[in-house]
Amino acid sequence: MTDVLDINVSKITASKLKHLRQEDLPFGKYFTDHMLEADFENGEWRNIEIKPYQPLLIEPSNSALHYGQAIFEGIKAFRNHDGEAYIFRPYENFIRFNLSAQRMCMPEVSEELFIEGMRRLIEIDKEWIPLKNDHSLYIRPLMFATDSALGVKPSETYKFLIMLSPVGPFHAVPMKIAVEEHYTRAAPGGVGFSKNAGNYGGSMLPAMLARKQGYDQVLWTDAFEHKWLQEVGMMNIGFIINGVFITPDLGDTILNGVTRSSVITILQDIGIKTEERRISIDEVVEAYNKGTLNEVFGMGTAAVISLIKELKYKNTVMHFDTSNFTTALKVKHKLNEIRHGLIKDKYGWMFKI
Amino acid sequence: MTDVLDINVSKITASKLKHLRQEDLPFGKYFTDHMLEADFENGEWRNIEIKPYQPLLIEPSNSALHYGQAIFEGIKAFRNHDGEAYIFRPYENFIRFNLSAQRMCMPEVSEELFIEGMRRLIEIDKEWIPLKNDHSLYIRPLMFATDSALGVKPSETYKFLIMLSPVGPFHAVPMKIAVEEHYTRAAPGGVGFSKNAGNYGGSMLPAMLARKQGYDQVLWTDAFEHKWLQEVGMMNIGFIINGVFITPDLGDTILNGVTRSSVITILQDIGIKTEERRISIDEVVEAYNKGTLNEVFGMGTAAVISLIKELKYKNTVMHFDTSNFTTALKVKHKLNEIRHGLIKDKYGWMFKI
Repeated sequence: MTDVLDINVSKITASKLKHLRQEDLPFGKYFTDHMLEADFENGEWRNIEIKPYQPLLIEPSNSALHYGQAIFEGIKAFRNHDGEAYIFRPYENFIRFNLSAQRMCMPEVSEELFIEGMRRLIEIDKEWIPLKNDHSLYIRPLMFATDSALGVKPSETYKFLIMLSPVGPFHAVPMKIAVEEHYTRAAPGGVGFSKNAGNYGGSMLPAMLARKQGYDQVLWTDAFEHKWLQEVGMMNIGFIINGVFITPDLGDTILNGVTRSSVITILQDIGIKTEERRISIDEVVEAYNKGTLNEVFGMGTAAVISLIKELKYKNTVMHFDTSNFTTALKVKHKLNEIRHGLIKDKYGWMFKI
Repeated sequence: MTDVLDINVSKITASKLKHLRQEDLPFGKYFTDHMLEADFENGEWRNIEIKPYQPLLIEPSNSALHYGQAIFEGIKAFRNHDGEAYIFRPYENFIRFNLSAQRMCMPEVSEELFIEGMRRLIEIDKEWIPLKNDHSLYIRPLMFATDSALGVKPSETYKFLIMLSPVGPFHAVPMKIAVEEHYTRAAPGGVGFSKNAGNYGGSMLPAMLARKQGYDQVLWTDAFEHKWLQEVGMMNIGFIINGVFITPDLGDTILNGVTRSSVITILQDIGIKTEERRISIDEVVEAYNKGTLNEVFGMGTAAVISLIKELKYKNTVMHFDTSNFTTALKVKHKLNEIRHGLIKDKYGWMFKI
């Protein structure tokens, strides 16, 4: 595949890597020496280049800023002690990126541009992949509209970028989550399943209001009854009730998380029954009251598995002793072993760079 | 108010105006010589300047492109033959802009920055306001996040811009509209009332699918039953049934249109009963079948009043003879007379520059 993609590579003269403090890597704050950039013009992706990470010149009338055609992905790469580097399930993100593009009336990208472009870029900045446990290289593909006229219509031109950010461990303290009773993230027929910029901006006010009440995030519910559970904004949600793993089925309101899908596969493999179906907050409260709610956790690329120690719904505050969350911790451990190359990649999830 | 706002003005050396072909002014394609720019940092708006219209340098990790904190407004300015220039109801847009900002967790702008900044900018580029009938200067305030880190949270820095675009007449041919039965623009608790970028990107696919079936736009319906009418994406919708004007009440799913509000005021003034309330497509079809559906039209800043000649819902196609739309045309005429200074501005809508 390498020869198919014509990439113009211009490298930096002196790497910034030596200035990076490996012990202080907040999520998505520092970027590697290079980025990949491509332009969509006249119906095709052109000018594919890997070049020094740098600001972009955009018009004040840039249509992504005005009309929100902007989608992204989040992926992680790891390096093992043999110096080999791997990307975790990039094809899943490639497929999801193009689904997001379709919904937002944006052009798709080819496998060559997305996967091979990413591989080539990481190859060049390979030394930036942190070696330490729980560290990784976060990969951020982004596509946004670049037309510069104010008529509301799909842009005819776009920019595709891949940027890389070395990240430290997500401080995985157990979370306090409030079930959202007023605000809505996504309704059927909307854009909830699409990883587009607008979904995030719309979520910030409810998240801020929850934080003011002492909660880390909200658990989104359906727009009709605020009863059927959706996701936690940056994570999917899972419950273990009576030993069975239950996570909301996707529909078009919930992001199809790659970590969620990986968790389901691992759980099934270790003999735990899994159900993807509608689950209401009432069912969760009832299980909690009966003592059959065993574990509650979030699943996402950034934090992998986030244990939830408190879940609030109206006047009910449910407390959990996360030290009993054996299943969540077992899955997290297994996922990390696969990602860091410590056990055999029996699912074929690791894409070698 | 002029002295309150400290604006640094740097003017172009040679105006582009002489190159502008006044007979060809597509919506939002050409921009005037100058723009206003301000930065939000450390909790306040700073670096307010009017400067030559030019591209911006932004980081690849710009948080508006990734997480959608971006809002805008659309306003029009007019010039009469005495050379006086006026902005149409800018305070309404100022209020709405700050409501949009609140919902998107963005800082508000002051009246000085928004109104006085706009006034000063237009004063400088006053010669760009077209004199011809149905022409105007379209004013586009924009605010977007400028933090450059990938953690999902409200940005701490923002840019506020005002750009100006001379526009010709919106080709006001009567429209064909399809009632949306699957896709959703906005649900209660969401961001439908907020003029943020994401609302527009999410609307493009349904609009494109409608165009493929020969319709100009979709009429959005509620997310639950796809039955209660909302808006037409870039316009509010109004019906005259049995001589009474009916437009959907706003709630939090519908944009609070300034043209909509102006139309209601004028209609009441000329003795037509107006109702802002829930209206279902079933009521519209029933009125059509009974022969009591007199007029259907859209209301928005770009097109002012757009007559609708066809409305499709499922297998029902409703045809209208728009030459009978006397009320819509009367209101449009009155609005245009006010905007172009041809009749007395009894409502105090015209803000003198």
